[in-house]
Amino acid sequence: MSEAIFRSDMTVELVKASASDADVIWAARVSTAGEQSLEEVGEDPARSAGLINYLARERHGSPFEHTSMTFFVSAPIFVFREFMRHRIASYNEESGRYRELQPVFYVPSKERKLIQVGKTGAYTFEDGTQEQFDITVKAMKESYLFTYERYQKMLEAGVAREVARAVLPVALYSSMYVTMNARALMNFLSLRTSRDGSHFPSYPQREIEMVAEKMEEHFATLMPLTHGAFQKSGRIAP
Amino acid sequence: MSEAIFRSDMTVELVKASASDADVIWAARVSTAGEQSLEEVGEDPARSAGLINYLARERHGSPFEHTSMTFFVSAPIFVFREFMRHRIASYNEESGRYRELQPVFYVPSKERKLIQVGKTGAYTFEDGTQEQFDITVKAMKESYLFTYERYQKMLEAGVAREVARAVLPVALYSSMYVTMNARALMNFLSLRTSRDGSHFPSYPQREIEMVAEKMEEHFATLMPLTHGAFQKSGRIAP
Amino acid sequence: MSEAIFRSDMTVELVKASASDADVIWAARVSTAGEQSLEEVGEDPARSAGLINYLARERHGSPFEHTSMTFFVSAPIFVFREFMRHRIASYNEESGRYRELQPVFYVPSKERKLIQVGKTGAYTFEDGTQEQFDITVKAMKESYLFTYERYQKMLEAGVAREVARAVLPVALYSSMYVTMNARALMNFLSLRTSRDGSHFPSYPQREIEMVAEKMEEHFATLMPLTHGAFQKSGRIAP
Amino acid sequence: MSEAIFRSDMTVELVKASASDADVIWAARVSTAGEQSLEEVGEDPARSAGLINYLARERHGSPFEHTSMTFFVSAPIFVFREFMRHRIASYNEESGRYRELQPVFYVPSKERKLIQVGKTGAYTFEDGTQEQFDITVKAMKESYLFTYERYQKMLEAGVAREVARAVLPVALYSSMYVTMNARALMNFLSLRTSRDGSHFPSYPQREIEMVAEKMEEHFATLMPLTHGAFQKSGRIAP
Repeated sequence: MSEAIFRSDMTVELVKASASDADVIWAARVSTAGEQSLEEVGEDPARSAGLINYLARERHGSPFEHTSMTFFVSAPIFVFREFMRHRIASYNEESGRYRELQPVFYVPSKERKLIQVGKTGAYTFEDGTQEQFDITVKAMKESYLFTYERYQKMLEAGVAREVARAVLPVALYSSMYVTMNARALMNFLSLRTSRDGSHFPSYPQREIEMVAEKMEEHFATLMPLTHGAFQKSGRIAP
Repeated sequence: MSEAIFRSDMTVELVKASASDADVIWAARVSTAGEQSLEEVGEDPARSAGLINYLARERHGSPFEHTSMTFFVSAPIFVFREFMRHRIASYNEESGRYRELQPVFYVPSKERKLIQVGKTGAYTFEDGTQEQFDITVKAMKESYLFTYERYQKMLEAGVAREVARAVLPVALYSSMYVTMNARALMNFLSLRTSRDGSHFPSYPQREIEMVAEKMEEHFATLMPLTHGAFQKSGRIAP
Repeated sequence: MSEAIFRSDMTVELVKASASDADVIWAARVSTAGEQSLEEVGEDPARSAGLINYLARERHGSPFEHTSMTFFVSAPIFVFREFMRHRIASYNEESGRYRELQPVFYVPSKERKLIQVGKTGAYTFEDGTQEQFDITVKAMKESYLFTYERYQKMLEAGVAREVARAVLPVALYSSMYVTMNARALMNFLSLRTSRDGSHFPSYPQREIEMVAEKMEEHFATLMPLTHGAFQKSGRIAP
Repeated sequence: MSEAIFRSDMTVELVKASASDADVIWAARVSTAGEQSLEEVGEDPARSAGLINYLARERHGSPFEHTSMTFFVSAPIFVFREFMRHRIASYNEESGRYRELQPVFYVPSKERKLIQVGKTGAYTFEDGTQEQFDITVKAMKESYLFTYERYQKMLEAGVAREVARAVLPVALYSSMYVTMNARALMNFLSLRTSRDGSHFPSYPQREIEMVAEKMEEHFATLMPLTHGAFQKSGRIAP
């Protein structure tokens, strides 16, 4: 049996992208410029920023769709469960039917706020005590090792992977490719990050927010004007 | 702690439906009859069956979309993981963030074929031995009880539900509402059931197929002509 | 040749609906109540309104999707061109390939503001003069009769309908069925109506707004709490 | 007034693409190879072709989605009307609200079969006579010039573009950007081209087929293995 690995981090790799602010500009300008819209791109940067801000503010979303970003994400199953509720995206994930799953599991870091205060719909999270942290990490590690051992035992007995994996926890790390356009990504970010300056408050689980934050960094690098416009318009997807 | 429950079945309840063969007919006939299409419905049952067969056979899919079926499904998380990859559908599921999850877990029944033979992309499944079955059930029950106890321990220590649930297995039962139109449902059935007479072979995991079979029964009752056309055209969604 | 008809109105008929505020409630409550969520519906109307307002305000959109409304719409082609850009919907329309199209054409009523003032992205519309109105109606009627006569001439010469229809104007009335869920409908309304109290301003063409207003009336009747919540939250779709 | 232009051709320009056969391979292999899937690409070309054929044949569609192709298309409005019924795509089109539309119109070439034989659902098209062709071209050109003159007259009188354009025919050329992934494109091609070797027959209008054929050439160049697999599997989108 491979040695179990306990992780607290999420990783997001930008695999490929066809996504720039210029893509938004020519897509938007076709409405007024027709066949000349490609030529006009980049002629006037300040006007470009103005146009993108206008589109974001007034919710003209379609010009943001002619873009594509593919990420390779490693995160626990419970994160992917939330992620895949976003339907305007393309997914391919590691499969517990076709592959023996590796013993890599999530445990919270010391920074993870462990205690939930308030009622449904208005939770806040606070730091746990050292004791609460220790109880959590111990309970998790024990569980992971116990169940992974039984997973192995079933596999050794010849039981199919898709049956044996039933015992594995939602904290198991999985990996997937996800491809999104900038509009869908902004919608994802608006719901899966919690930020000051958001017009609508969001209360994402911290672990998916960690993934979203890394995706946002890539997005901001690829499309700085669009990202700026997203911020300025209260982090609402156009 | 509630007593753990071990289940082998899936349940599917039809919550509501606005779906009949007549819906397909008026939607299709608008292309030739315009505003008269509603009146013509039901004038000639044989012609109706012929039209629906024609639409299914020639892949005119849109008339099948003016229908809506809502199901309440109870199944393990690993089934919902596959289910939610179907994006032309609406979902709301029980939440481990907002609710203390109940100790209800999946164990295979004696009918579940436990052994996988062949290579990726061409598996067949065969019965396991009594010993393999016993090993499986034992490994599962031990795992479920062990991890659920630790889940409880973390909750008792005041740890947030969304953190503590990390240890719970993908075999845990969850429940959700799913709403689909008939076209999306036929696509789901074509991929998630394995049937003789299918033009394209599918190799669904048995547990999601159990859910799909129950959904198909409701569909066949609500829309018998459409279901018949689906069968006749090789179980390919139009 | 049938006598040409000149119309200024849009018609929207509610063909069928499976859509009520209660649908939103049970869909939302499954996250906390699991399998009991259906039973709780209707137990406390005030709490129901509160829940729906909360969902709309905080952009929990998925519970609004378990609903379905089918409309039969008659409107000019230029309205349908805009309408069908809304992709979360199902459409079936009268076909110029399969049917001889009837001579029914749009002309503006006296209420239609004819003059556009300001620049791209910030237009306002103002009343035209009587002369402008007369020029418009005359130019339109002449064009419609002239081209429909040529359409007929081609058909009489044995030319295929799909070829001959090329001459027909985008003002020609067509008819279609469209099915949407409440979430998609709210998105449509937010973009295709212009109302005080909207968080984001929209500048729809008046003719599609006339269609949207009629759809909104049906929606408000079917789902009064949801419609109220849509209004309260600035007419942004959750 | 600009001189009117009569065209019989459709143009499709590939604006940008992030689409290769390798994209399909790593996306598919993640299910069995997890984080190593990117490294394995290109190691064995024959195995790659085999995998892509397998995916197409067995309808594993999701790996084809991590691709993006943007086309700039010029075609008549009646073509775009059909095109935009494809909902898994992103569109931005020239706008008759924001722009004075140019007098460019479709007339059939001599190759266009003008006569429709047979009944609904089983049409075939045949060549027209010279007289039918002459009648058609004359009726079209007369209509286009007549209505465009009235469009100009309304604009000169100060009437808003969005009102005046009502008289313009569906044969008017428009232009748009459309972005699709390879899976959506294969679905488009399966329905909008008519080819021997198709498992399901399609009867597209010739003018949209002309657009589809040009898109298919670009697709075949960008993703030759995928295009070959599409052909081999009866031109059914996976």
